[in-house]
Amino acid sequence: MLAPASRDVVIVGSHLDTQPTGGRFDGIYGVLAGLLAVQALQDRAVAQPGRARRNLAVANWTNEEGARFQPSLTGSSVFAGTLTLEQAYALRDGDGISLGDALAAIDYRGSSPLDLQPIRYVELHVEQGDRLERAAADIAAVSSAWAARKISVVFEGEASHTGPMPMASRRDAMRAAARAIEALYDEVERENAGAHASAARISVFPNSPNVVAARVQVWFEVRHEDEAVVLAIGNRFLERIERESASLGVQISIAADERRGTALLDSAGVDVVCGVVRDLGLKALTLQTVAGHDALAIQKRIPASLIFVPSRDGLSHNPREFTDPEALDKGYAVLVETLWRMVTAES
Amino acid sequence: MLAPASRDVVIVGSHLDTQPTGGRFDGIYGVLAGLLAVQALQDRAVAQPGRARRNLAVANWTNEEGARFQPSLTGSSVFAGTLTLEQAYALRDGDGISLGDALAAIDYRGSSPLDLQPIRYVELHVEQGDRLERAAADIAAVSSAWAARKISVVFEGEASHTGPMPMASRRDAMRAAARAIEALYDEVERENAGAHASAARISVFPNSPNVVAARVQVWFEVRHEDEAVVLAIGNRFLERIERESASLGVQISIAADERRGTALLDSAGVDVVCGVVRDLGLKALTLQTVAGHDALAIQKRIPASLIFVPSRDGLSHNPREFTDPEALDKGYAVLVETLWRMVTAES
Repeated sequence: MLAPASRDVVIVGSHLDTQPTGGRFDGIYGVLAGLLAVQALQDRAVAQPGRARRNLAVANWTNEEGARFQPSLTGSSVFAGTLTLEQAYALRDGDGISLGDALAAIDYRGSSPLDLQPIRYVELHVEQGDRLERAAADIAAVSSAWAARKISVVFEGEASHTGPMPMASRRDAMRAAARAIEALYDEVERENAGAHASAARISVFPNSPNVVAARVQVWFEVRHEDEAVVLAIGNRFLERIERESASLGVQISIAADERRGTALLDSAGVDVVCGVVRDLGLKALTLQTVAGHDALAIQKRIPASLIFVPSRDGLSHNPREFTDPEALDKGYAVLVETLWRMVTAES
Repeated sequence: MLAPASRDVVIVGSHLDTQPTGGRFDGIYGVLAGLLAVQALQDRAVAQPGRARRNLAVANWTNEEGARFQPSLTGSSVFAGTLTLEQAYALRDGDGISLGDALAAIDYRGSSPLDLQPIRYVELHVEQGDRLERAAADIAAVSSAWAARKISVVFEGEASHTGPMPMASRRDAMRAAARAIEALYDEVERENAGAHASAARISVFPNSPNVVAARVQVWFEVRHEDEAVVLAIGNRFLERIERESASLGVQISIAADERRGTALLDSAGVDVVCGVVRDLGLKALTLQTVAGHDALAIQKRIPASLIFVPSRDGLSHNPREFTDPEALDKGYAVLVETLWRMVTAES
């Protein structure tokens, strides 16, 4: 412990879980950098006795990505108190396995409470966008986050033979789902506000080439800096696909409608990070994050800071995700100094 | 054996494999009716010695449906010589398991040659459409089959984050696939020739809610009584989706393009079936089949006959597929008498 007399702890971390194809930096960089930073600051605290007023801890938050279990940001949301541990354990993957059972199976279903008082959180992450690269900047201090709406829609039609069944008698859930995917992009373009949107996961039953699909589930997303835009696009989209699906004899139901408002990260933390970047002679931007991050969930409980380094070509959730070692080193230097200032600050 | 002095055999049968959700009649009815018919005719041959000039055998053709392994009509195509046994064994399911290994695992990978000479094939099946029901007819003698084109298309985009990745930079294989599904129905309606079409199976990688899809495969079908219509719709569809996918940065490639021409079933067999139906005081139609059947594959080697009984509401490939027991009995009576005439006919 850096400051045995104190119960206060600054948590540094991120997540080790990834999307099915990685990349290798998304999350993992922040956990490993956090481990190294705590070790380095432990040495510094020993060399400068009495300076550290608070302790440090490293966190690896469970299921940040939401690739296997939805919703994402699971561990950090439990920490923040916006999701109960019971709700988190009850989440089920596509095969029906619960998160609680999956954690128990790898011996990670623990119950040790943290016996220190978390007062701040700091997360170092790759940007996953191209704004730092385009601005030729080294570091972003993230000030806030876009709003997001994640809607999972079930399309219920009826199984029938893809051959003889008259076209007019079919209730084709796949056709309704395909039309809905197009409708989402159409509504985003109609709004013309620069929203981001996707339909990236689909589940089809029975998914046989010769059976008109009886049941299709699609996971849709809309993101924008303005929560009202996200809400409006989502609402218009749902009204439209209900009408268009009905015209195909397909009923829709909403399996999930998760809304994340815009979020502000701690402004004092942004100031600390910007001061460190300046003092290290690096170039900083202040950015909004489009992607969700554990820091956003944690900000609901304690002040949280999020620091970005560039991502080559803005590419992420891809095995070719890449950040140059020098850029990683700059981020690490900023993290170490930021943490040191946070554990040594008088207030 | 009905006629031990003869090497000739009339084969009766269908298939026991089904789509993931059945129905219970599609295929199974024809195999069970065949078994009972052979037993009944064995008794009749004993009671009328010397009448039977040919033998009977029952066949259960492997993988008629093509639900797990594509293409369908596998066993009957091997029998007909249009698919080699090696090609059939090498077919792989969605998990990469070969048909040869799957058959060996259930001890069905046999090698016993048939030591009789097949001369005719007869298959009793449910209609899977609504034409018999609408005509209030009991039996259809199937005269011919629609053409079909089954195209499996791979859409190759690039994985990226569904959040921060700029919309214009995405290469979204799911979006291209959804647009292609709509394009297929649009091309069918534009042709306005009454073609049937479907997109019923999809495979998405990595299929995570937060990763723009890198690779999507969709199984498309077009069917029509006129082969030229099927070809034209398929060609226009492929040209269109190549162009539309390219505009999304997505490349398409054709994983399979299976074309089945229109097929005529043996006309002498149609006459035998119609004669039997008339003699039994039932009402017959002569129909085209829209669906593929083992009889169509087998007709390429020996004369084949296909007999339909009604399907309630035309519904098939659905657990609610249903044919009334009385209608099943009528079909069975027609099958028994048809087979008897075929094994006793002088030529």
